[in-house]
Amino acid sequence: MSEAIKQPVTEPVLPVEKDEEMLARIDAWWRAANYLAIGQIYLTDNPLLQTPLAIEQIKPRLLGHWGTVPGLNLIYAHLNAQIQRRDLDMIYLAGPGHGGPALLANVWLEGSYSERYPHVPRDAKGMKQLFRQFSTPGGVPSHVSVPTPGSIHEGGELGYVLTHAFGAVFDNPTLIATAVVGDGEAETGPLEGSWKGVNYLNPTRDGAVLPILHLNGYKIGSATVLARKSDEELNHYFRGHGYAPRFVEGDDPAAVHREFAAALTDVLDEIATIQRQAREIGIEKRPIWPMIVLRTPKGWTGPKSVGDMPVEGTFRAHQVPMSGLSEHPERLAKLETWMKSYAPESLFDTDGVPCERIQQLAPRAERRMGANPHANGGELTKPLIHRDLHDYAVVFEESQRGREFHPSTERLGQYMRDLYADNPHDFRLFCPDEIKSNKLDAVLEVTDRCFMGPFDENDEKLSMDGRMLEVLSEHNCNGWLEGYALTGRHGLFASYEAFTSIIDSMAIQHAKWLEHARDVAWRASVPSMNYLLTSTCWRNDHNGFSHQGPGFIDTLLSKQPAVVRIYLPPDANTLLCVAHHCFDSVGYLNAIVIDKHPQLQYTTLEEARDHCRRGLDIWDWASNDQGGEPDIVMACAGDIATQETLAAVDILRTYLPSLSVRVVNVVDLMTLQVDHPHGIDQARFVELFTASRPVVFAFHGFRGVVHQLIHGRPDTNRFHVRGYREEGTTTTPFDMTVRNQMSRIHLALDALRYLPRQLEGATRLIDDLQALLEKHHRYIREHFDDMPAIANWTWTGGLIRLPVDGGEP
Amino acid sequence: MSEAIKQPVTEPVLPVEKDEEMLARIDAWWRAANYLAIGQIYLTDNPLLQTPLAIEQIKPRLLGHWGTVPGLNLIYAHLNAQIQRRDLDMIYLAGPGHGGPALLANVWLEGSYSERYPHVPRDAKGMKQLFRQFSTPGGVPSHVSVPTPGSIHEGGELGYVLTHAFGAVFDNPTLIATAVVGDGEAETGPLEGSWKGVNYLNPTRDGAVLPILHLNGYKIGSATVLARKSDEELNHYFRGHGYAPRFVEGDDPAAVHREFAAALTDVLDEIATIQRQAREIGIEKRPIWPMIVLRTPKGWTGPKSVGDMPVEGTFRAHQVPMSGLSEHPERLAKLETWMKSYAPESLFDTDGVPCERIQQLAPRAERRMGANPHANGGELTKPLIHRDLHDYAVVFEESQRGREFHPSTERLGQYMRDLYADNPHDFRLFCPDEIKSNKLDAVLEVTDRCFMGPFDENDEKLSMDGRMLEVLSEHNCNGWLEGYALTGRHGLFASYEAFTSIIDSMAIQHAKWLEHARDVAWRASVPSMNYLLTSTCWRNDHNGFSHQGPGFIDTLLSKQPAVVRIYLPPDANTLLCVAHHCFDSVGYLNAIVIDKHPQLQYTTLEEARDHCRRGLDIWDWASNDQGGEPDIVMACAGDIATQETLAAVDILRTYLPSLSVRVVNVVDLMTLQVDHPHGIDQARFVELFTASRPVVFAFHGFRGVVHQLIHGRPDTNRFHVRGYREEGTTTTPFDMTVRNQMSRIHLALDALRYLPRQLEGATRLIDDLQALLEKHHRYIREHFDDMPAIANWTWTGGLIRLPVDGGEP
Repeated sequence: MSEAIKQPVTEPVLPVEKDEEMLARIDAWWRAANYLAIGQIYLTDNPLLQTPLAIEQIKPRLLGHWGTVPGLNLIYAHLNAQIQRRDLDMIYLAGPGHGGPALLANVWLEGSYSERYPHVPRDAKGMKQLFRQFSTPGGVPSHVSVPTPGSIHEGGELGYVLTHAFGAVFDNPTLIATAVVGDGEAETGPLEGSWKGVNYLNPTRDGAVLPILHLNGYKIGSATVLARKSDEELNHYFRGHGYAPRFVEGDDPAAVHREFAAALTDVLDEIATIQRQAREIGIEKRPIWPMIVLRTPKGWTGPKSVGDMPVEGTFRAHQVPMSGLSEHPERLAKLETWMKSYAPESLFDTDGVPCERIQQLAPRAERRMGANPHANGGELTKPLIHRDLHDYAVVFEESQRGREFHPSTERLGQYMRDLYADNPHDFRLFCPDEIKSNKLDAVLEVTDRCFMGPFDENDEKLSMDGRMLEVLSEHNCNGWLEGYALTGRHGLFASYEAFTSIIDSMAIQHAKWLEHARDVAWRASVPSMNYLLTSTCWRNDHNGFSHQGPGFIDTLLSKQPAVVRIYLPPDANTLLCVAHHCFDSVGYLNAIVIDKHPQLQYTTLEEARDHCRRGLDIWDWASNDQGGEPDIVMACAGDIATQETLAAVDILRTYLPSLSVRVVNVVDLMTLQVDHPHGIDQARFVELFTASRPVVFAFHGFRGVVHQLIHGRPDTNRFHVRGYREEGTTTTPFDMTVRNQMSRIHLALDALRYLPRQLEGATRLIDDLQALLEKHHRYIREHFDDMPAIANWTWTGGLIRLPVDGGEP
Repeated sequence: MSEAIKQPVTEPVLPVEKDEEMLARIDAWWRAANYLAIGQIYLTDNPLLQTPLAIEQIKPRLLGHWGTVPGLNLIYAHLNAQIQRRDLDMIYLAGPGHGGPALLANVWLEGSYSERYPHVPRDAKGMKQLFRQFSTPGGVPSHVSVPTPGSIHEGGELGYVLTHAFGAVFDNPTLIATAVVGDGEAETGPLEGSWKGVNYLNPTRDGAVLPILHLNGYKIGSATVLARKSDEELNHYFRGHGYAPRFVEGDDPAAVHREFAAALTDVLDEIATIQRQAREIGIEKRPIWPMIVLRTPKGWTGPKSVGDMPVEGTFRAHQVPMSGLSEHPERLAKLETWMKSYAPESLFDTDGVPCERIQQLAPRAERRMGANPHANGGELTKPLIHRDLHDYAVVFEESQRGREFHPSTERLGQYMRDLYADNPHDFRLFCPDEIKSNKLDAVLEVTDRCFMGPFDENDEKLSMDGRMLEVLSEHNCNGWLEGYALTGRHGLFASYEAFTSIIDSMAIQHAKWLEHARDVAWRASVPSMNYLLTSTCWRNDHNGFSHQGPGFIDTLLSKQPAVVRIYLPPDANTLLCVAHHCFDSVGYLNAIVIDKHPQLQYTTLEEARDHCRRGLDIWDWASNDQGGEPDIVMACAGDIATQETLAAVDILRTYLPSLSVRVVNVVDLMTLQVDHPHGIDQARFVELFTASRPVVFAFHGFRGVVHQLIHGRPDTNRFHVRGYREEGTTTTPFDMTVRNQMSRIHLALDALRYLPRQLEGATRLIDDLQALLEKHHRYIREHFDDMPAIANWTWTGGLIRLPVDGGEP
C-alpha cells in the first residue's frame, strides 16, 4: 500500500465551532449563497438591488425550488471550513431535487464557476448572468446537473445519491463524498436500499461517505416519513443500517452554525479515526460510520407567510415561495425586503465581488468542491491495461467451425481476471449475486467478493479485501458503477438480462448525463457504462416466464444514438473483441448481450476482430450464394438467434441443395439504423440484404426492435422478423425457441414460406418440419429434455439428418 | 363503519405452543411438505418410495431451489394452526425466489390444489403428477406464480412482497397478509423501501401485514447483509422502521416449533390488540406493529454434506443441493435416505393420502390459504359505480372548437372525486407526491391523503382517515396498487411520465402475470392496472432534461398485445371516455398519457365517445380534403402532438389554400399495429392514411414506436414521424417542440418537403417559417417566454396570422 493511501485525514488545529471568525465567514457565505439563489429564481437584472426593485426585473416565468436551498447552502459553507482546516479531498453530492440554485451559488462564490464559464465572472456582471441564465431558454437547468462544476450527481430523478457517493469513493482512499439526502428522496426504495453501502466499504483502501440527511419536513405537498419520525426512531433506523447518527436541529442561525460545526468536527474526526486505525493497525470488523441528521425549516429565512398562508417551514416553501408579483405589487416589495434581509451590501462590494470574509472561506484551487478533479473524472481516467486477447480466445480447427461448445462468458471472466490483476485500483466488476452462475468466476482467482463481515466458516471467496462487488440489488450495482465511472474508473455490471429492467430509469438518466456531457466543453469523457446482459431469455426455460425479458434493448434504443451501443456477440471471440472495445471506450453506454451456457463457436479471433469492426457481415462459410443474388437472406443477431439460423440453414441446404441462401450475422445492432453513427449506408445495406429478396431475421430480443431499426431501409416489409415473444410456460431450451417461434424449424419454414421460387422437395420438407414440431412436443413431455439430435446439433454444412418420425430422436 | 369491520381478530383458546397435539400436527405437516418439495425437485416416479429408488426415476434436468423450502414450509404449517385457532382470514405471500416447491407442497396437502387441478388429486397418483409437472415441459414454474392457488405474488423478480401485502390489506379490515421476506430479497432497494407501509396503514379500516423475515444466511453464492447483522442491529433496524421485532432462531425442529408457535401467538395477539383498540376505542398514533425474524439453516434437514463439501446451512443448499446422481451412484442412495428421513410412511397412507394428523391441520374451506378468495381477487371484484360523464365533460360551442383552454386532468380529478365518494371501499388513487401539481386534487374534497402521523399544524388534507395514497416512491405506489387490484379492487397510479420508468420492471412483471392468468381457467380477471402518465416530456421545459422521458410506452409495447393498452387522449372529453373504459376493464395494463396543463378542447363528449370507440379517425372539421384523396395526411397521437399538428394545418390552410390536407388523430395507439386485438385491418388503414400519400406523423413519444407499430402496413417509408428526441436544455414550452423538431413549424415544413406536387406560395412559406424559427430563437432568449402569437394560438381554420418579422410577436 502506498504512502498516500496510508495517510489519514489530518486533525484540525482549532475546531470550527470555537472559531468565531470562521463562524462569521460561514454565516456570511451562507447569507450570500441564499441571496444568490433567490436572485436566480426571481431576477433578470439589478442583481445587487442597488436601485429599487422594479417589476420589469422579475422573470416572467418563476421557476426553481427554494425549499431545500438554505440547507444545501448551510452544508456547503460549513464543509468549506472543514476542508480548509483539514485539507480535505471532498466532493459534494446534492440529493434533493432541484437544488440547482444552491449549488450554482456556491460554486460561483468560490470562483470555480467563473473559471469554467468566463462569461459569468465573479462580479456584478457575472451575477446578473448567473441570475438570468437560471432555468431560462438557453440557460441552465433548475437542478444540479452536468454543467454544474463539481457535480457527479444530477438532482433529477431521486434515489441514487448514496449509491453514487459509495461508487465514487471505492478505491479512492483520500476522497470523502458528502452526500446530502433529502427527506423526499429518502422515501424512495433505491435510496433506502443504498444505506447498506457501508457493508462493502473498506476504510483501508476506500474513501469515506459522509451522509447528511436533511429533514425539512415536507415534500411538495405533504409530510415526509423520516421527518415525522422521532429522533429515537431515527436513531434506531440508522443504528440498524450501521451508522452512528448525530442530530442537529434548529431555526436560529447562530445556534445551528455552532451545533452543525461541532457535529461536522466530530464526524470528520470519527472518519479520520476509522481510517487511521484501519490503515495503521488493520481492521477486524465493519466500522460504525458517522452520519448527520440535520433538521431545519423548509425555506428557512424565506417569507414567513404570503397572503394569510404560512410559508417558511411548510410545504408551501417547496418551490417558488411567492409568485404573482405583477398582480400583487406588495409582494414585489416583500421580495426586495427578503433579499435585503441578507444585507447584500455587506456581502458583495459595489462591483458585486464577494467580500474578503467570504473569499477567505473558499478552499484553495482543487480543494474547492466545484473544482475537485474527482468530479470531472475523465481528467483522472487512466486507460485500462489489457493483455493480448489471444490469451483468452477460443482456438479451433477450420473443420471444427460451428462444431464445438464452449461457455463464452468463461473467456470474458478470464479476461476480467487479468484486468483485475493488472489494474488493481481502476477496475471493478459489479453483479447481483450471480458471478459464479454467470461463469465469470475466474475473477475470484485474483480477488474476493467484498464484504465487511462478520464471516462464516462456509463463506467462499468473501473478504474485506475483495474488490468484486456482489449485492442483491441492481440499484446498488448500477449506482456504484456509475459513481465509479463518473470519477474516472472502469467497470462492468453483469446483470441477469431480464432484471436489467429494474434499473431502466437509472440507465436512461445516465444516458442523458452522457448526452449532456458531450455539450459541456470542460467535461472530460468518463469511462463507458458497460452492461453484460446474461442469463438471457432464451435459456431461462427452467426459471420461467418472470426471468425472460430482453426489454433493456428497447429502453436503450430511444436514447441519443451518440451515446448508446448494443452488441450481440454470437460466440466467445466476438465477445472478447466487443468487451475489449467497450472497456477501451469512453462516454458510451454499452450493452453486451450473451448467454452463459456453452455455445457453438464460429469465429477465430482474427475473424472476430474484422466482424466486430464491420458490425455485421455476410458469413460466407455458412452461405451458398457464391456472391450472387441469393434466393433468401437468413439474418441473425444474438447467440441463440445465430445458432438457430445456422441450424435452419443447415436443414435447408441439406434438403434443398439448389436453394441459394445467404447468412448475415449482426453483432453491432446499431449498424441497422439509418441515422446512427454506426449505421451503414444504403449501398452497404443493399450489398448485405439485397434490395428486394426476402429476409428471414432471427433476433434475440423483441421483433419490434428490428422493425423500428430498419425503418427507412429499402422495402422493409420483406423483412420477416422473429424474436422473443411474451409466451411463458415451463419448457426445455429448444422448446423455448419453438414456443417463441424462433426455432430452427420455424426459421426454415419461414424461408420456405417466403421463397421467391418453387423448389423441388420444398413441400415434403414443410411436412417433415411440421411433423417434427409435433414429435418434439410429445418427446419433451415424456423425456423432460430435448431430443439429442436437436440438443447436440452442430454445423454440418448441409449434411444434417433430421430426427423425423421413424428416425432417431 | 359496519359491524364486520369492527370485529377484531378473536383470541385463541389454548396457545399453539402449549398444545402438544397441535405441535405434532405441525411437525408432521412440515415433514410432509419438505418431502413433497424434494420429490418435486428430483422424482418422476415412485413418489412414496415404496420400491428402491432407481436412477430412471430421477429427472434428467434437476431444477428447483431447496434452500428456502424448509423455512417456507415451517411458516405455512404454523400459520395453519393459528388460522384454525383464531379463524383467521389470511393469505401467504412468499417473497423468497423460487419457493415454488414449498407452496405447491402445502396447497396440495391442504387439498386446495386438487380442487383447482383435479388431475392432481391428493393421493399417490396426484403426488406423482405433482412431482412430474414441477419445472418440466408443459408443467409449472419453479417459483410461486399465477397457477399456484392462494398466490397474488410471484417469487420471480425480487423486492415487492411487502408492497403487495400492504396493497392487499388496504380497505380489507379482516385480512392478514403474511409476507415472508427472504434475506436475499431484503437486500433490494424496493424491499427496503417498502417497510414504510405501516405509515399508511390504518388499523381501523385496513387489515394487517405480518412480515416474517426469514434469514437463512446466504443468497446464491455469498452472505446476505441482514443475516450477518447482530440481533441488536436488526432490532434497531426494525424499530427504526416502526416495528417491534420478535426473534426466533434454531436448528432443532422441536425447539423451533415451540418458539415459533409462541412467537406467532404473541404477534397475532398484538395485531388483534392493535385492531381492537383502534376499532373500539379509536387511534391516536401510528401503532408499533409486530414482525418476526426467523433464523434457520439454509436447506435445513437437507444433506449435511455432499462429497467433502458442507451443504446444509451453507450457500450450497441454495438450489439443488445434490446433483450428478448418474455419475455418483452413492448420491442416489443418499437422496433416498434423505427423503426417508421424513418417515413418509407415517405421513401418507399407502395410497399417498396425507395422514389424519396432517389433514386435521388444514383449515376449513376458504380459510385454507390456497383457497382464500382474496388471492383470486377477481371473484370479489365489484364493478365501480360511475356517474354520468356529462357531470365532468367540457362543454363548448361549435364555434369554440379548438379555441378554449382547459386543464383536462382537472376533469379526471372531479371524476375520481366521485369514484371515491361512491366506492368508499373499492377505489384508491396512488401518486408520488404530485396529486395537486397534476391537478387531480378534486379528490381531496372527499378524502385526505393518508398518513399515520404525527401531524403538524401546517399539514393540509393529511389524516389517518385519508384514503388517497401519496408516497415519494414509485415502487410503493405501483406495488400497492398491484396488491389492491390483485385482491379485486380498483385504482389508478398517477405518475410523472418520465419517472414511470422507475417501475418498468414491475409493470413488465405484472403484464406477465396478467398474460399468464389468461391461461389459468380458475383465475377470475382482476381490475386493470391503470397508469396515468402526466407531467409529460413536452411541458417539462422548466424541469429540464432529466424530467423528460416517454419511454414507458416503449416498455409496454413489447408486452403481449392481449393485455396492453396505450391511450393518448388529446383533450378532456377523450380523457374522460378513456378513463371510464379503463376503470371498467379487467385484466389489462392501461396507460393513459396526457399533460396537466391547460389544453385546447376539440371534441364534445359524444364525439369523444365515438372517437375513443374507433381508436383513431379522420378529423373532418380540421381537414379540407372533402373525402377525396388528400395531398398529404397530417397524423397525430398525443395532446401536444395534436395541438402542434392542428396549428401546422392552420398555417398550411392559411397560406396554401389549394392544398388538400387530411388530419388523422390517434387516441388508441395499438390500433396501428397489424396483429394487436385493437389493430385496424389494412382496408381501414388505407381508408385513413391512403395507400401512398405522404404522412407526416406527430407522435408524443419516441418516433421508433410508430416505426415499429406500422411495420407491415402499406409503403411505410412514406411515414415521416416526428417524436420526442433526447435533446435537453432549458427552454420554453414551444421551444421544447422546436428543439425536438415536433413544433407546428417543423411539421408544416415537413408537409411542404414531402408534398407530392408544386404549389404556389410554398417556397415563400418555407422561407417565412424558417425565418420564424430564428425569430423565435432570439425572442425567447430576450423575453424568457414564447411569443404570444405562438403561446396563445387557437384554431382558426385557415385564418392564422404568422408572427413573421415585422409583424407582432
